[in-house]
Amino acid sequence: MVLYVIGLGLGDEKDITIKGKELIEESDVVYLESYTSVLFVPKENLEKFYKKKIIEVDRIFAEENCEQILNEAKSKKISFLVVGDPLCATTHHDIILRAKKKNINVQVIHNACIMSAIGECGMQLYNFGQTVSIPYFEENYKPTSFYEKIKINIDNNFHTLCLLDIKIKERTIENIMKNKNIYEPSRFMTIQEAIDQLTYCENILKKNVITENTLAIAIVQIGSLSNQQIISGNLLTLKSLHYNEPLHSLIICAPNLHDIEKEYFDMYLST
Amino acid sequence: MVLYVIGLGLGDEKDITIKGKELIEESDVVYLESYTSVLFVPKENLEKFYKKKIIEVDRIFAEENCEQILNEAKSKKISFLVVGDPLCATTHHDIILRAKKKNINVQVIHNACIMSAIGECGMQLYNFGQTVSIPYFEENYKPTSFYEKIKINIDNNFHTLCLLDIKIKERTIENIMKNKNIYEPSRFMTIQEAIDQLTYCENILKKNVITENTLAIAIVQIGSLSNQQIISGNLLTLKSLHYNEPLHSLIICAPNLHDIEKEYFDMYLST
Repeated sequence: MVLYVIGLGLGDEKDITIKGKELIEESDVVYLESYTSVLFVPKENLEKFYKKKIIEVDRIFAEENCEQILNEAKSKKISFLVVGDPLCATTHHDIILRAKKKNINVQVIHNACIMSAIGECGMQLYNFGQTVSIPYFEENYKPTSFYEKIKINIDNNFHTLCLLDIKIKERTIENIMKNKNIYEPSRFMTIQEAIDQLTYCENILKKNVITENTLAIAIVQIGSLSNQQIISGNLLTLKSLHYNEPLHSLIICAPNLHDIEKEYFDMYLST
Repeated sequence: MVLYVIGLGLGDEKDITIKGKELIEESDVVYLESYTSVLFVPKENLEKFYKKKIIEVDRIFAEENCEQILNEAKSKKISFLVVGDPLCATTHHDIILRAKKKNINVQVIHNACIMSAIGECGMQLYNFGQTVSIPYFEENYKPTSFYEKIKINIDNNFHTLCLLDIKIKERTIENIMKNKNIYEPSRFMTIQEAIDQLTYCENILKKNVITENTLAIAIVQIGSLSNQQIISGNLLTLKSLHYNEPLHSLIICAPNLHDIEKEYFDMYLST
């Protein structure tokens, strides 16, 4: 029948749109994708507020059972809920493509996502270059391409939104090899960890991209009315601060700020 | 007391979030900003659905009466409604700065905006460079900086989101000089007009940025369930098509598409 792909926005169960909530209420089955981001409230709050049972979908379930979800959507109304905007990240383009190939009607309900909500920090979205992801370094895998991308942005006087890695329900290589479904505790990269990794890249590549004086903005739980923090400063200062629980993001500012950007930067300055 | 700056999303009155609607219901006065974008439904639909009188604010009102709105917010709950996300464009950073300087509590309620909703076209938001605005050419004023910015994006294999000009309630220079409040009919740049202006730049600057074969995606009324169109093709083809009423936007694609981007491009190909 139809697959509704519905953005939940950034904060809690009340950040869904009226349209999205109505479609959930009409749905026969409701899935919640919980492996690319996290809502700041437990699933039970959503179930109570939407008055629907919600089936949480982790990465393994989604990969192994995507066809099942799509087959259900042939005869039922299925909602697939995603934190933020459903198509802001790349993950969910695949399920939509597959649905359309099966001639399933797909409706996307957009919502706020980090890539636009950061407008609240006062840096103009027009002045951002390419967004980068900073992945957790592992002992034998320390990719530095995000550093090179930030350099290109800085050279062109663009801001860079750095999205910090999250690891939800991941298994160690050992447990994958042994086929054991034992999951590591979830991890969410913090501002401090991101700055450490950026500093590591600077020490290796020495292109003068990241210094203690680089201006940046720490973004914590954007969209959450109670826990949101926006704090500007240089990287040395930002590294020394304590923040609310993740999700954290980091904006590396363009070298030259416009007047209104300067005013915002000063307003959010760590004191 | 408090200034709520609330995003309405992209489609109709039901694209507001539950949180946003609740804050409107609590508000003493509700303003609707109607000069930087347009909702696809009349104000009356909003008033009926939100059960509140809504005061439409044009650019002149906002500039002349901003202080009045802020003074009201000292003792009342004021909602200031903005189509899309309230801070996606640059216009409304000023009122928030001014409010904070007056120690007025400000709460921003985010929502979908064009800059993230275009994820629906399948081009990855990570692969976009700087967003550009294409302003209406006037007889003696034909700025071409957007062309240069698209060239930088193409040279770096980035997509470019081109936001097309809108003119709402504008006066001719003659009427401004005579201090007459006579307004021109609203105008919304179409895909065809944008392609014409891009072609004009190419003919003047000859940097081989825009050719008939340049791949692009026409975006019409994104977020509207009934009128949304996403159509891909080369510029020659896109120029020849008929589209639903504006708002229109245009994506100039990066020269090399990733596999999933190619699949989306082909799915949306004009046939």
